[in-house]
Amino acid sequence: MPQRLHAQPHHDGSELYAPTRGVALGDRHLVRVRVPDEYAPVVSVAVRVVADAEPRFHPLAATTWFPEGDRGATWWEGAFEIANPVAGYRFLLNHADGTSAWLTGDGLDRLEPVDARDFRVATYAPPPAWAGEQVMYQVFPDRFARSAAADDREHPEWARPAGWGDEVVSSGPDTPRQLFGGDLDGIAERLDHLERLGVTLLYLTPFFPARSNHRYDASSFDRVDPVLGGDAALIRLVEAAHARGIRVIGDLTTNHTGDGHEWFASALGDPDAAESDFYVWTDDAHTEYVAWYGVPSLPKLDWNSRDLRRRFIEGPDSVVAKWLLPPYGLDGWRIDVANMTGRLGADDLNREVQRTVRRTMDEVAPGRVLYAESTNDAARDFDGEGWHAPMSYSAFTRPVWQWLRRPAPGAPHHFGIPFAQEPAYTAEDLVASYRRFTAPYPWAVRELAMNAIDTHDTPRFAERADDRAQLVAAGLSMALPGTPVVFAGDEFGLRGVNGEDARTPLPWDAAPRLADEYGRLARFRRDSAAVQRGGLRWLHADDDALVFVRELADESVLVFATRAATEVRLPFGAVRGVERAGAAGVGFGDAALEMGGDGFAVTASGPAFAMWSLPVRRADASSRADATGRADATRSAAASDGGGRPSVTPAPAPVLEPADA
Amino acid sequence: MPQRLHAQPHHDGSELYAPTRGVALGDRHLVRVRVPDEYAPVVSVAVRVVADAEPRFHPLAATTWFPEGDRGATWWEGAFEIANPVAGYRFLLNHADGTSAWLTGDGLDRLEPVDARDFRVATYAPPPAWAGEQVMYQVFPDRFARSAAADDREHPEWARPAGWGDEVVSSGPDTPRQLFGGDLDGIAERLDHLERLGVTLLYLTPFFPARSNHRYDASSFDRVDPVLGGDAALIRLVEAAHARGIRVIGDLTTNHTGDGHEWFASALGDPDAAESDFYVWTDDAHTEYVAWYGVPSLPKLDWNSRDLRRRFIEGPDSVVAKWLLPPYGLDGWRIDVANMTGRLGADDLNREVQRTVRRTMDEVAPGRVLYAESTNDAARDFDGEGWHAPMSYSAFTRPVWQWLRRPAPGAPHHFGIPFAQEPAYTAEDLVASYRRFTAPYPWAVRELAMNAIDTHDTPRFAERADDRAQLVAAGLSMALPGTPVVFAGDEFGLRGVNGEDARTPLPWDAAPRLADEYGRLARFRRDSAAVQRGGLRWLHADDDALVFVRELADESVLVFATRAATEVRLPFGAVRGVERAGAAGVGFGDAALEMGGDGFAVTASGPAFAMWSLPVRRADASSRADATGRADATRSAAASDGGGRPSVTPAPAPVLEPADA
Repeated sequence: MPQRLHAQPHHDGSELYAPTRGVALGDRHLVRVRVPDEYAPVVSVAVRVVADAEPRFHPLAATTWFPEGDRGATWWEGAFEIANPVAGYRFLLNHADGTSAWLTGDGLDRLEPVDARDFRVATYAPPPAWAGEQVMYQVFPDRFARSAAADDREHPEWARPAGWGDEVVSSGPDTPRQLFGGDLDGIAERLDHLERLGVTLLYLTPFFPARSNHRYDASSFDRVDPVLGGDAALIRLVEAAHARGIRVIGDLTTNHTGDGHEWFASALGDPDAAESDFYVWTDDAHTEYVAWYGVPSLPKLDWNSRDLRRRFIEGPDSVVAKWLLPPYGLDGWRIDVANMTGRLGADDLNREVQRTVRRTMDEVAPGRVLYAESTNDAARDFDGEGWHAPMSYSAFTRPVWQWLRRPAPGAPHHFGIPFAQEPAYTAEDLVASYRRFTAPYPWAVRELAMNAIDTHDTPRFAERADDRAQLVAAGLSMALPGTPVVFAGDEFGLRGVNGEDARTPLPWDAAPRLADEYGRLARFRRDSAAVQRGGLRWLHADDDALVFVRELADESVLVFATRAATEVRLPFGAVRGVERAGAAGVGFGDAALEMGGDGFAVTASGPAFAMWSLPVRRADASSRADATGRADATRSAAASDGGGRPSVTPAPAPVLEPADA
Repeated sequence: MPQRLHAQPHHDGSELYAPTRGVALGDRHLVRVRVPDEYAPVVSVAVRVVADAEPRFHPLAATTWFPEGDRGATWWEGAFEIANPVAGYRFLLNHADGTSAWLTGDGLDRLEPVDARDFRVATYAPPPAWAGEQVMYQVFPDRFARSAAADDREHPEWARPAGWGDEVVSSGPDTPRQLFGGDLDGIAERLDHLERLGVTLLYLTPFFPARSNHRYDASSFDRVDPVLGGDAALIRLVEAAHARGIRVIGDLTTNHTGDGHEWFASALGDPDAAESDFYVWTDDAHTEYVAWYGVPSLPKLDWNSRDLRRRFIEGPDSVVAKWLLPPYGLDGWRIDVANMTGRLGADDLNREVQRTVRRTMDEVAPGRVLYAESTNDAARDFDGEGWHAPMSYSAFTRPVWQWLRRPAPGAPHHFGIPFAQEPAYTAEDLVASYRRFTAPYPWAVRELAMNAIDTHDTPRFAERADDRAQLVAAGLSMALPGTPVVFAGDEFGLRGVNGEDARTPLPWDAAPRLADEYGRLARFRRDSAAVQRGGLRWLHADDDALVFVRELADESVLVFATRAATEVRLPFGAVRGVERAGAAGVGFGDAALEMGGDGFAVTASGPAFAMWSLPVRRADASSRADATGRADATRSAAASDGGGRPSVTPAPAPVLEPADA
């Protein structure tokens, strides 16, 4: 049974509902809740905030202020003091019938919720503003493109050279050794392609020398792999990308190095080596060691080592700093296996590593971005203190697959959950999953969280879906809060049954048949502040379809995604300006937006995705009174008539900023 | 709609399902899941454990082993390595129809759950075994009983002496000053009463000198308040209690002291004082300071101070140690405002305080118990590393009230949730609430968690319920995992609209009209290892009634609670031995257990509570085959016929212990 999502009260951390930047310890934090008229008569609303681990309650007041044209709801507003660096909060709504409900980060609950579901606001410095505007393109350098110079390079000893058209070896010992010879100049030569896709942020999987084609087993962090063209090629690529307004980030393994790493070579078997304490030895002779998942080629780093911190992550001479500074000038990092970093047995140094990497970046090269991998539930590590945002599969990737993919019982890839039978999700399940995994993130984290439909560690989406379903998925990655991620090759409709198989060299002789659609999506997003940083309010979800809106005070975008023929009807009050919506949008399939009677319908005859810009104009208080029949009176909360009509107080300023009061 | 709880798969941390003691880092941890035949055909089960923040999956195998007489289910068994001091885990069940479900600490979910819902196992030293056997009795010393010696004592200057029969002042400035003069010898004289109630653990709210009748504003931790009889009286009380097998714990405020405390007197206005850094000053002259909830008489302690740690909580010369050692010999502590302790702004020293208090106790006076107050969701602070178990209101007290209390719109006490309208819970809501708040606790914590129907900080239960409803609530406090808590006076049916009003001097001239019922409940619990430490499996919950079973390999207790006339029918397979149940039980109201056809019914004509001991005898594998028609074959998991018949493997030992393998 579809939930009446459009009739539910809403809050999120976006600027319609709370200050999003410059939040500091001790601030009085203003928060708002939108209560739809269709929800239930509400007599009072309070916010519960946890301060020094003790809940405090503060009343909210109904207000005449509301964003441009919002005729279907009452907005409640109040404030609390931010007592700790990360503050959890939720709302309590008292209904006219004597019942009440809690509004948490993942929805409404009649019963007292656990604190883990609270909204969170954090006082850490936010990521740079540009980070929220990006469309990311993930490139696995060995497989993207080969420059002419690549032909002259020597292959490393471990490599099994392959021709660009050869089949990818996706299992067995040659899987990591098969080297197609893509290089950084090959990427630089294809920047036109990135521009066509609307890409603004290039994420390179590791470019350090290693003993594998994936290079997550670095043998040094001090130079770019000569096979990729060396340091000079990186400098050329970053300069060329920057010249087109495309930023570039690299990929660091803080959990481990390769066993070919110069640090490991020095430390192995030599307890007196300078790098001896960089690794976790399990014998006195330092010949046995802890490794990632027990894979001997990936020895785990020991962050108890002060020297390791100094050389790798701390200060201007560290690896972290070096590649952000001239002449390289990377725009940030993606951290590999961030969730396991610094964690082993009774040791948990993860937070210290996070903080140190971030501090180094903020001090040495401010304005850079810091993504980090957390394969599953990322809540505990992502509050904005260290990593800016997660690359995770729980909130977006898996639910989207489980909603859109063709059934294939016994499909070989377990998608991070071995032993599982592939679940079938409805759109409602997708919404529930997305909400539960993103709820604990402060808004600044949600705004950047990587939304990938596939990566170098998963099957290709096209392996289990046709082009139209892939565009529905891609559309969601562009439309939801977070950083959309395109894995290079998706625009060609490449296939692959698992991460290794998906690392196909890009078939430049063929047409990237989805490139224009990706480009349209990306450009729509680039031009829409609401899609980049607006609130996310769910309006509808059923088995096949979902509808939501991204909102700012002066802009709204209506988003519709379906996997099958459908018609979803919603009242005009659900979203501002929809009745005046024109053709301003982007979509695939035959998604349509139609007016009729008291509301509107979104329809499609099969898989479809659409975003529509809604014309929002500033309304004054009297237009609201006209629309709802309410008087524009000023009454106190206590004077509420008890019949569900909320009290009304004078309008505050429409944009929430921290204030002293 | 009632959930078919008896048909749901089950796991908890109790000894039927996992080792409960001596769990260590690196152990191979055996876990079991009970899958009722009525649930769904299950083809495989795996356990997902988070190790170094990365999920790992391990398959379970179906086993012929099952506890004595359990004919209605298949048990699955497997193991994982305990990689970290606290390990979260959950189960994945794959069904024959291709769907799957997750079993977490708070129930089943079709969708991937968040890690916060996982079961948790911890490697910390468990509490002393005796702690799980207790029935606690909370005494507020000023109001319990007055010895003859009290007449000769001088009243402190702040006190407003009251006669034992005077009305309690429950609001205004005299509330904390009204002194009835109850004393420790008064308690010692009434130990017969405690024995009659079946009480085995006496919890004294603070006995240190203070400037209030509640004494949470200590003016010293070095001596017992002379008004209570001084140190000698405490020694007499503890000796007398011990002589009867009753243990005694005290109450410490680690968050704050009183402003009359000798430390504070020394530190106030003197930045050079030895105790200067014990408090949090907000001016240079040390005249302004941070206080609990801003109440000036309760200055907050600053745990950054090494001297404070040394004098208060660290080592054999500390306050924590002194009262556990001869000649006082307390059996443990309850820590007041534990949740806020050490937390202020960006500081969070809470875990350090926890660890230090616990280490001191374990080193100086091993075998003592350490409860701690956490007014609401206690999950984050209670994994057994420091505090043994919470005194909290979220899991038990509030849900029980909201299920059983008479409606009273606008009742003055907000029960910890100001601004809330009083919610009305069904029994199903109670079960859901209990599960969600207890789910994250390791079993050792759940086994001791304080289950109070009221305390010195709440209204009296009798204020909103008749005797029978109170006995249903008291029955639940005795029957659920945890430490049952009787607030002295409940056995008299005392009333009180809030915490202050509830601190009525005990009316010794009247009959404690519920004393025999409390005594019966307590003695049943004392004699039942299953009630003390057995697993908790829910069988049924609807609006009015709930049924559950507490289980060990060789003992089961069926528990039934209802607020109204009801009949609950369940199949024999839901619980072992029920078909042979006799009269061995304890109950109130006309609760009855009746056999009929394929199952049994629990019935009542109004509010009722009952516990029945079920005759459990050891069954061999063939009796199971007889009962279910299954062959006693040994098949591999892979050889499962896919139709839902689980595979069968040889029986392991029936008691789970850590093992190397």
